[in-house]
Amino acid sequence: MKKADAVRAILADRYHQPPQNKVGKAFAPTNIALCKYWGKRDQELNLPVTSSLSISLGDKGATAEIAVHDLGQDKIILNGQVIDLGSQFSKRLIDYLHLFRDSSGHSRAPHGNPRVPHDHSHCHSREGGNPFFRITIESNIPVAAGLASSACGFASIIKALNTLYGWNLTPQELSILARLGSGSASRSIQPGFVEWHVGTKQDGSDSYAELISKDWPELHVGLLIVSQSEKSISSREAMQRTVATSALYSAWPEKVSQDLALIKQAISTHDFELLGKTAESNALNMHATMLSAWPPVSYAIPETLLAMQKVWKLRQEGLPLYFTQDAGPNIKLLFLQKDAEQIKTHFPQAEIISPSS
Amino acid sequence: MKKADAVRAILADRYHQPPQNKVGKAFAPTNIALCKYWGKRDQELNLPVTSSLSISLGDKGATAEIAVHDLGQDKIILNGQVIDLGSQFSKRLIDYLHLFRDSSGHSRAPHGNPRVPHDHSHCHSREGGNPFFRITIESNIPVAAGLASSACGFASIIKALNTLYGWNLTPQELSILARLGSGSASRSIQPGFVEWHVGTKQDGSDSYAELISKDWPELHVGLLIVSQSEKSISSREAMQRTVATSALYSAWPEKVSQDLALIKQAISTHDFELLGKTAESNALNMHATMLSAWPPVSYAIPETLLAMQKVWKLRQEGLPLYFTQDAGPNIKLLFLQKDAEQIKTHFPQAEIISPSS
Repeated sequence: MKKADAVRAILADRYHQPPQNKVGKAFAPTNIALCKYWGKRDQELNLPVTSSLSISLGDKGATAEIAVHDLGQDKIILNGQVIDLGSQFSKRLIDYLHLFRDSSGHSRAPHGNPRVPHDHSHCHSREGGNPFFRITIESNIPVAAGLASSACGFASIIKALNTLYGWNLTPQELSILARLGSGSASRSIQPGFVEWHVGTKQDGSDSYAELISKDWPELHVGLLIVSQSEKSISSREAMQRTVATSALYSAWPEKVSQDLALIKQAISTHDFELLGKTAESNALNMHATMLSAWPPVSYAIPETLLAMQKVWKLRQEGLPLYFTQDAGPNIKLLFLQKDAEQIKTHFPQAEIISPSS
Repeated sequence: MKKADAVRAILADRYHQPPQNKVGKAFAPTNIALCKYWGKRDQELNLPVTSSLSISLGDKGATAEIAVHDLGQDKIILNGQVIDLGSQFSKRLIDYLHLFRDSSGHSRAPHGNPRVPHDHSHCHSREGGNPFFRITIESNIPVAAGLASSACGFASIIKALNTLYGWNLTPQELSILARLGSGSASRSIQPGFVEWHVGTKQDGSDSYAELISKDWPELHVGLLIVSQSEKSISSREAMQRTVATSALYSAWPEKVSQDLALIKQAISTHDFELLGKTAESNALNMHATMLSAWPPVSYAIPETLLAMQKVWKLRQEGLPLYFTQDAGPNIKLLFLQKDAEQIKTHFPQAEIISPSS
């Protein structure tokens, strides 16, 4: 209900506007939080307890293509595979698409179809599923392995809908709408370093991501995929459990507030050591709050631990190398371009990404 | 200096009393904290930030045998091996023994030697090292692998000195003196469940361990030694680093206060689920504070993680099994006697201990 209101507040008159194009297609980069989003103050609107800050990963992410069709139900194709509409994945996506369907049925077909007067009082009830969409998503990152696949997924969907309907939404509006699908999707609208403002309003209208800086070409990221399997517990559930049961979580917001200031300082002065140290510490503190939850949550597998220990050892030996880890077992290395060759030697399996290029 | 004062406050006149026996020999059990000691408010006196609670592990521990000898220096034999006096191990032990040597030289030889008048003003200066001791320690647990080897080590030493000198110290006094060697040694004086009271006095005279209960024969412990190697960082250093740098540590004392009450309740009502859950959560919260320190501290090795995950899986399948972990990679399983056979099947390498017998 609150979600529908948030959509209506942004789309306003455009809510009933029929699609302006036959197809909407858009790419959204995945993002890696250097200062994490962990904990919601509003479960429905995905409003966070704290601000967070991420870097978008260049051309790593998802491309969504959405068309209106008349087959009586949605069709979802993920990386070439038709996805069962009863699956968790489909349900979540369909629920999201419901927010943008005009239940009055006017936008069933692309631009040019006749518009009929409608009764506004029903606009919040969107169970009907009209119009139906054909959605194809191509993702070049593993799904549900802590690589923010849902972040770039929902961001690409809202950007594709924006194109399909011709809404001409601003990055800020897109960020708010992406957030309704997945919190961290709010940070996947734009490339570069973005800060997702915690906001204070109950309707979430001031909780969106904003571009901070695009410019730090030397900063590189190494994706160390130690497992392609789906994570044992969704970040949504892990987050909720942490907030509800972790004794240490009470200290987390203050930690984020300090880290956020340090990371912004590091980005503006290109102080890599400060960036790396703060990002790694922030990630470990997030995982610490999960370990302190009950039942305890741990995303690490032995390979995660070994990679972390390897980073610590190399750093002790003088290599300026740090890592971050999200709600999954994979490790994201942070280093400078000048050390890329060394990193490749030590982690031959890492996929090296230059987020700025 | 504060340590020497603490010793004098307890021994009083007995400080100058020569040994009453040729040899003092004593066993002290190792203990496993169910509610952890993590953080000091006084580094020299090993005064803790919070109270803690442990169970002594029956006949697992250390036996110390101490005799006065005239070879001009101490001799330390650990598990049959003469230990170099320049080693860290020896230095720490010799420093501790200094606290009990009478620098006036009167107690150089066992009972029966003539006593000579002495100048009390020098009694705090114990650099002389008189008398010298021959110390043999036999430990049936791995040294420095997070099995509280220093706890039972120092506890056995003070108990052996008590016998050697005939001090007739109370368990409370022994606990205070053991604490000067190693904080958790204060809990290794007696068998059973003991609570180490945090105390409020600056001299530590109210910070000692007390027997809570001896009686819970069904409670069993399984030692899962995944590594015999020495830990990468001493608990002393890890503790200091955590207190100094962890953002989450501020929430730890309140967590301990809650857990302590729950564990005491569990012990008095023999509520195993409450005991297991609280002990495991307490341990994980302690490790969480380490992970949140900088540089981060992690005692886990891949085998630690796999054992934890196995416990979680078995528990999900209905087996009432919990674990605790100290400053080392090893895991201590907590379960009831009735499930011992199942535990042996799942963890054939675990050493099963009945602490009450």
